[in-house]
Amino acid sequence: MPIRTVLLGAGPGAAYFSAGIERLKMGEIESYGIPFGNLFRSYRPEDIQIVGVFDVDNKKIGLDMYSLTTKLLNDENVPKTLKDIEILRGLHCKSLQGLPIDAMGLDDIIGDSNIAMNEFISLLDKLKPDVIVNIITTEKQIQVNNESEFIKLAKSCNGTASLAYAYAAAEYSRLHNRVSFINLTPPLLANSPGVVSYYEKVGGLIFGDDAATGATPLTADLLEHMAERNRKVNSVAQFNIGGNMDFLSLTEPERNKSKENTKGSIVNDILGYDAPHYIKPTGYLEPLGDRKFIAMHIEYISFGGFTDEIVVTGRINDKANLGGVMASVIPITKAYIDRGYKGTVSSINRFFMKKPGPLGTKNVSRIIAYNELMKELKALDII
Amino acid sequence: MPIRTVLLGAGPGAAYFSAGIERLKMGEIESYGIPFGNLFRSYRPEDIQIVGVFDVDNKKIGLDMYSLTTKLLNDENVPKTLKDIEILRGLHCKSLQGLPIDAMGLDDIIGDSNIAMNEFISLLDKLKPDVIVNIITTEKQIQVNNESEFIKLAKSCNGTASLAYAYAAAEYSRLHNRVSFINLTPPLLANSPGVVSYYEKVGGLIFGDDAATGATPLTADLLEHMAERNRKVNSVAQFNIGGNMDFLSLTEPERNKSKENTKGSIVNDILGYDAPHYIKPTGYLEPLGDRKFIAMHIEYISFGGFTDEIVVTGRINDKANLGGVMASVIPITKAYIDRGYKGTVSSINRFFMKKPGPLGTKNVSRIIAYNELMKELKALDII
Amino acid sequence: MPIRTVLLGAGPGAAYFSAGIERLKMGEIESYGIPFGNLFRSYRPEDIQIVGVFDVDNKKIGLDMYSLTTKLLNDENVPKTLKDIEILRGLHCKSLQGLPIDAMGLDDIIGDSNIAMNEFISLLDKLKPDVIVNIITTEKQIQVNNESEFIKLAKSCNGTASLAYAYAAAEYSRLHNRVSFINLTPPLLANSPGVVSYYEKVGGLIFGDDAATGATPLTADLLEHMAERNRKVNSVAQFNIGGNMDFLSLTEPERNKSKENTKGSIVNDILGYDAPHYIKPTGYLEPLGDRKFIAMHIEYISFGGFTDEIVVTGRINDKANLGGVMASVIPITKAYIDRGYKGTVSSINRFFMKKPGPLGTKNVSRIIAYNELMKELKALDII
Amino acid sequence: MPIRTVLLGAGPGAAYFSAGIERLKMGEIESYGIPFGNLFRSYRPEDIQIVGVFDVDNKKIGLDMYSLTTKLLNDENVPKTLKDIEILRGLHCKSLQGLPIDAMGLDDIIGDSNIAMNEFISLLDKLKPDVIVNIITTEKQIQVNNESEFIKLAKSCNGTASLAYAYAAAEYSRLHNRVSFINLTPPLLANSPGVVSYYEKVGGLIFGDDAATGATPLTADLLEHMAERNRKVNSVAQFNIGGNMDFLSLTEPERNKSKENTKGSIVNDILGYDAPHYIKPTGYLEPLGDRKFIAMHIEYISFGGFTDEIVVTGRINDKANLGGVMASVIPITKAYIDRGYKGTVSSINRFFMKKPGPLGTKNVSRIIAYNELMKELKALDII
Ligand SMILES: NC(=O)c1ccc[n+]([C@@H]2O[C@H](COP(=O)([O-])OP(=O)(O)OC[C@H]3O[C@@H](n4cnc5c(N)ncnc54)[C@H](O)[C@@H]3O)[C@@H](O)[C@H]2O)c1
Ligand SMILES: NC(=O)c1ccc[n+]([C@@H]2O[C@H](COP(=O)([O-])OP(=O)(O)OC[C@H]3O[C@@H](n4cnc5c(N)ncnc54)[C@H](O)[C@@H]3O)[C@@H](O)[C@H]2O)c1
Ligand SMILES: NC(=O)c1ccc[n+]([C@@H]2O[C@H](COP(=O)([O-])OP(=O)(O)OC[C@H]3O[C@@H](n4cnc5c(N)ncnc54)[C@H](O)[C@@H]3O)[C@@H](O)[C@H]2O)c1
Ligand SMILES: NC(=O)c1ccc[n+]([C@@H]2O[C@H](COP(=O)([O-])OP(=O)(O)OC[C@H]3O[C@@H](n4cnc5c(N)ncnc54)[C@H](O)[C@@H]3O)[C@@H](O)[C@H]2O)c1
Ligand SMILES: [Mg+2]
Ligand SMILES: [Mg+2]
Ligand SMILES: [Mg+2]
Ligand SMILES: [Mg+2]
Repeated sequence: MPIRTVLLGAGPGAAYFSAGIERLKMGEIESYGIPFGNLFRSYRPEDIQIVGVFDVDNKKIGLDMYSLTTKLLNDENVPKTLKDIEILRGLHCKSLQGLPIDAMGLDDIIGDSNIAMNEFISLLDKLKPDVIVNIITTEKQIQVNNESEFIKLAKSCNGTASLAYAYAAAEYSRLHNRVSFINLTPPLLANSPGVVSYYEKVGGLIFGDDAATGATPLTADLLEHMAERNRKVNSVAQFNIGGNMDFLSLTEPERNKSKENTKGSIVNDILGYDAPHYIKPTGYLEPLGDRKFIAMHIEYISFGGFTDEIVVTGRINDKANLGGVMASVIPITKAYIDRGYKGTVSSINRFFMKKPGPLGTKNVSRIIAYNELMKELKALDII
Repeated sequence: MPIRTVLLGAGPGAAYFSAGIERLKMGEIESYGIPFGNLFRSYRPEDIQIVGVFDVDNKKIGLDMYSLTTKLLNDENVPKTLKDIEILRGLHCKSLQGLPIDAMGLDDIIGDSNIAMNEFISLLDKLKPDVIVNIITTEKQIQVNNESEFIKLAKSCNGTASLAYAYAAAEYSRLHNRVSFINLTPPLLANSPGVVSYYEKVGGLIFGDDAATGATPLTADLLEHMAERNRKVNSVAQFNIGGNMDFLSLTEPERNKSKENTKGSIVNDILGYDAPHYIKPTGYLEPLGDRKFIAMHIEYISFGGFTDEIVVTGRINDKANLGGVMASVIPITKAYIDRGYKGTVSSINRFFMKKPGPLGTKNVSRIIAYNELMKELKALDII
Repeated sequence: MPIRTVLLGAGPGAAYFSAGIERLKMGEIESYGIPFGNLFRSYRPEDIQIVGVFDVDNKKIGLDMYSLTTKLLNDENVPKTLKDIEILRGLHCKSLQGLPIDAMGLDDIIGDSNIAMNEFISLLDKLKPDVIVNIITTEKQIQVNNESEFIKLAKSCNGTASLAYAYAAAEYSRLHNRVSFINLTPPLLANSPGVVSYYEKVGGLIFGDDAATGATPLTADLLEHMAERNRKVNSVAQFNIGGNMDFLSLTEPERNKSKENTKGSIVNDILGYDAPHYIKPTGYLEPLGDRKFIAMHIEYISFGGFTDEIVVTGRINDKANLGGVMASVIPITKAYIDRGYKGTVSSINRFFMKKPGPLGTKNVSRIIAYNELMKELKALDII
Repeated sequence: MPIRTVLLGAGPGAAYFSAGIERLKMGEIESYGIPFGNLFRSYRPEDIQIVGVFDVDNKKIGLDMYSLTTKLLNDENVPKTLKDIEILRGLHCKSLQGLPIDAMGLDDIIGDSNIAMNEFISLLDKLKPDVIVNIITTEKQIQVNNESEFIKLAKSCNGTASLAYAYAAAEYSRLHNRVSFINLTPPLLANSPGVVSYYEKVGGLIFGDDAATGATPLTADLLEHMAERNRKVNSVAQFNIGGNMDFLSLTEPERNKSKENTKGSIVNDILGYDAPHYIKPTGYLEPLGDRKFIAMHIEYISFGGFTDEIVVTGRINDKANLGGVMASVIPITKAYIDRGYKGTVSSINRFFMKKPGPLGTKNVSRIIAYNELMKELKALDII
């Protein structure tokens, strides 16, 4: 059975994912890069059917995913099946303010955010998604402590677009179809108590926050490696630089801070002490494109008081990684919806997210998180 | 209660360990670098008492561990308590043949390996060890399939010195005191069915083979990281070069092969397929000393068929790492002896050894192995 | 004959240099790290005699260089001869504004910058330096186009402290003793036409700007390596992070910009086109101390249109490097003073400085600059 | 005017070069990766016309360069103009012995090496080359001290195939057309006095030995960088691993030794002392293909006795690099022939070769060598 999926944000994240999923369905590629990729027994990545994509960039709205993907992947051979997926206008809530993009959401056009919200919910009802994935441009972080704050900020468009979308999805859950809303961006949704409790009430599921891809989960596993040998970590420096809009937007201090928060939490969580660290998106360098360059330095004390050092560098396609996460987490969370889960599920967040919700959830090494999730998935007959 | 410990081999491995343990007892250093270091509830690293060290290098025999350690660590301030530990003559069995060392064992002096063996066993009886740790120079690998083969090769000194020592320890176990024999070198002991079954019979415990320190356990965790994301690993290259006798001896093809065997097994075990790899000690460069330089390259395919690469480099004190393993595995295995275990214990080998025995045991990532061992140690009230 | 030398700024730069020079005189260390170190025939590094050090940090003024160096190098064995060098109060001109330092200069105390300037010049006259080295905290960059602007900004303390010091040294040159003023910090002095022409007039020499140490001269040579093979450089990323006050101060945007300017100019100068690059001080991480961590990534196109990549990482003691530059440039410039040179000398700046003056001087690879300078030094009988 | 060029060895080196040169002529690619690429005034890379290629692999003989290149570059779009170049049978002299290749040379077929030699010389006379480039599989190194030894070893096929080819080219020079013979492989030709003097006599030019590409010239420049700062280099480790036949053949000890010799000489030549080093081809790992992985570690002492370290890693297309060297050295040496040069020219060898001839020529940093060669080329109106 297909998993009807809506994507919020028609950026490279959406493009790599869409192209990859269609290629997978057509047998052009293997399921490489998809966690649990060849173990799925219930829903599988191939069941994902993208039924709609929302954006607010005027240059993108109205295009189909085929032409967008051709351009963003700089590849003439993306699957033709993407021609059927249209890019629709979503809610803006000023998410792109400060960036050089001509953006307009339903809220900007209608002029009343309440009406825009209802309009967006009825668009969702037409598309009938089972899963909604948030991959819009990184916004600042706000923590929402209670439901009424959540509703107020969302309906007035005074928080983030992510909050507005999360609320719309919750309403859609309540009125039409229980949905899984997956927040792969830094703003705190699964870490906002007010959001999670509202999802519990309406019977939907919310996951987040910020997809764990690239250098951060690798750092988590390296730190666990140190912790298990009781090595004392003196310092951790982690640089990463890329050439896409994601990195460009992170040169804005508030958005950067947002990423720094979700990234930095692993150190204390895993080591048990806050080893001095410098972990944040470092800069923008256009020719690197979607294949960012990472560099990491860890210095630590080993037995006898001797100091050792390791350095990790790499060239990593960020967007391919994000696509792999999406291809795995969509079928998994759909299966949880079917099994009646509500609110959020920390075991899923712990493996897939940089800052796993609900609030207070500790980061563990990814290898640990993976193995615990695997056990749970087996017990639930998902893999 | 002290854990009476005998070391086989008075090389840098022994020196770093001895200095570190004494410093730890004196409160000069923290328990950094000792796995489970601050969790021990039963025996603790501070309980280790080195009662004797054996070597066959004529330049070392007769020295005390204070003067040896001063020289090997190039440090004027090693603990004076090491003056009480004498370096005694052990069994040679030609383990140093081909290397530029003037060596002579009891077997060479007495001229009859049977009598030398008995002489060595009665030396053990005088020292009354609870734990014996094998850290002599890397020898070639032989797999011993049955007990009679084991006894024959050991008594005639026609196998390796490691086999002879393992046999002597087993006899000492049978006649005097049940002992834990820990093989931290590549020759197959815990992976030799004939050796393990003999230990079961005499009531001793044998652990091995080849201590998992440095680049190899790190590679194991990195490969697990890849495997969990279902990334297809194209190739793994791992170089390491150092400046001590350990690296010098590994420039001999047979000894090198021995290391390559224990190191390479992780790839297939963890990934589930034999990704092309080049993993072996690479060379000798004197000024690097005990702080080897490592470099590793991993190329893999991620979602959508995109190729990523990571490189790890580092400067690592091999001997400090080995010392940390010893300080942890000695109290653990002593606790298992007390609890009546016999033969070998794969959960311990899986975390501490490159090629975990008994024969057929699969390598898992170290993080997994650590967590399983931790659960077992808690259940047994060891931590 | 001794080279009477005054240092401006009693930071780690001054401390490493002072300790090193005294150790060199006492024969405790070799002349490693000093360009042309064992070739000097005229003045030699051992001839350097530090006659005074100026600072404006109230915690440092009044201390001697022995106690300062003991603390900054964290070393109990620095040469006792440093006890004779006192730290005196210099000119502040708000150079430390915004940093957490309790600072006060002669200008702050006297309340009139003109009088403070004269006071400082007469202090110089007492110390009778041949060479004055500017190594105060990084300030912002101003380019001074004519002499009257220079004099106005300097006397009113409305430019930078570096400008004020440069003017004081020029006046001292005019009135007392022709001096070499070496600016190893980013503010533009040797690149300010107004400053250079004033030095020509008074018969002094000014060198700068910003000492070429660490990653930047290495990058210069790597880019030259690419350029000579006609490789097309796609992008250059260079990170560096350290744990001293130098890095802390560079987290201030204006000071950081100052460094970025001197660092970035090499790309266009050497390649002949402005390859996209990200080159600037990246961050502050306290445990790294004076031994910064650097990482660099260069991607380029080679024959046939194939793309190659190299990555350089390193752990480098910034202050030791700076000390080596000082130990070489001081005797060299003193010899130029003796030979009657005035204004500035671009061949010296081209090897020793990140942004070589006078204005308009192009960066060349360091290897080229070195060889040209070597020829000149030989011709002048300096080496 | 075209430069008629013969290639010895139809391996990847020949394939990358041929494809690149044709693409350059057709304007499909820029002259990137060709030293002096856009400066040539006399002959230019586009003037190179490949008139014949020799091999001894039975599977290759009779093919055209189009089909060979398509396969070796794994590229369907190589220029069709390569169809006109046939692969002919050359002299074997057992150069491929020990490798898994079904090889047969004129000498094997004819059964008499003297006759085979004459046969080969008359083949050359038909092709009428101006330049002959030796890029056959790496052979062992022999130094030939006088002309009679050269003639004897060459005619009897008892030395290396490289010697035999060098002799054939000399004879062709003497009888037909003065030729430039460029040895880009490790066997000593330009470093053999007997060979060079014979070329002088016959009026030909011989260049070599072993093309300086990849990690070695980079190391040369890095070492020069150290030397100029008077840093004391403690040790140099350089690894490189690749996946083509070139690396496979270097797993044979004698061939490996041959490379090690040409690579290692830079250390002493540039530093002035023989810093301990480990520099040799490290291994073979098939999936890496022609894009080798390199890793280098340099530790050195800087001012004040502090120890710094740098690490270089990279992914480099070896064959593209070799092609760039060929595209530059062919037009240059042809211009020297025209200008009446005989024997060898050390300035050319110093930039282009790992072990520059004639015997006794010192390695200098590549940047120095480049600049000296540039001056000479300008003086001769070549650039
Ligand atoms: N590996 C990874 O790439 C990774 C990892 C973790 C998190 N993320 C997050 O994924 C997100 C997407 O990455 P990307 O590279 O595609 O980002 P991007 O910024 O390049 O593209 C996002 C798209 O969202 C659109 N958008 C912005 N505001 C919107 C709104 N209110 N409604 C609808 N569309 C809107 C933009 O116009 C753009 O087309 C980012 O938030 C990033 O932080 C990515
Ligand atoms: N991180 C690590 O250092 C590490 C990791 C895994 C395994 N190991 C193993 O640990 C062992 C010891 O390392 P090391 O650096 O001290 O080695 P080493 O070779 O420098 O020193 C070993 C010592 O054992 C002595 N010896 C040799 N044969 C002997 C015999 N028959 N009886 C008694 N003594 C003998 C030698 O004389 C020498 O003093 C090696 O086998 C190595 O493979 C080390
Ligand atoms: N490798 C290198 O370390 C390197 C390379 C190039 C340039 N530099 C430059 O060298 C300088 C010194 O480096 P550092 O690490 O010692 O810096 P620092 O900032 O740690 O110390 C500078 C000292 O100067 C003092 N100071 C500040 N303003 C002053 C003033 N007006 N008068 C007198 N003293 C004043 C400060 O109190 C401090 O003691 C910096 O400007 C840096 O940019 C260093
Ligand atoms: N960057 C570089 O690739 C580089 C740098 C320096 C030197 N080199 C040298 O260039 C040479 C060529 O590199 P490659 O990768 O093409 O090598 P290769 O070994 O893959 O191919 C060489 C070809 O020469 C042929 N050959 C062997 N003996 C022959 C003979 N007697 N006559 C004619 N043909 C013969 C082989 O059959 C093969 O087709 C090697 O000697 C290598 O050491 C390469
Ligand atoms: Mg993007
Ligand atoms: Mg050793
Ligand atoms: Mg400082
Ligand atoms: Mg080849």
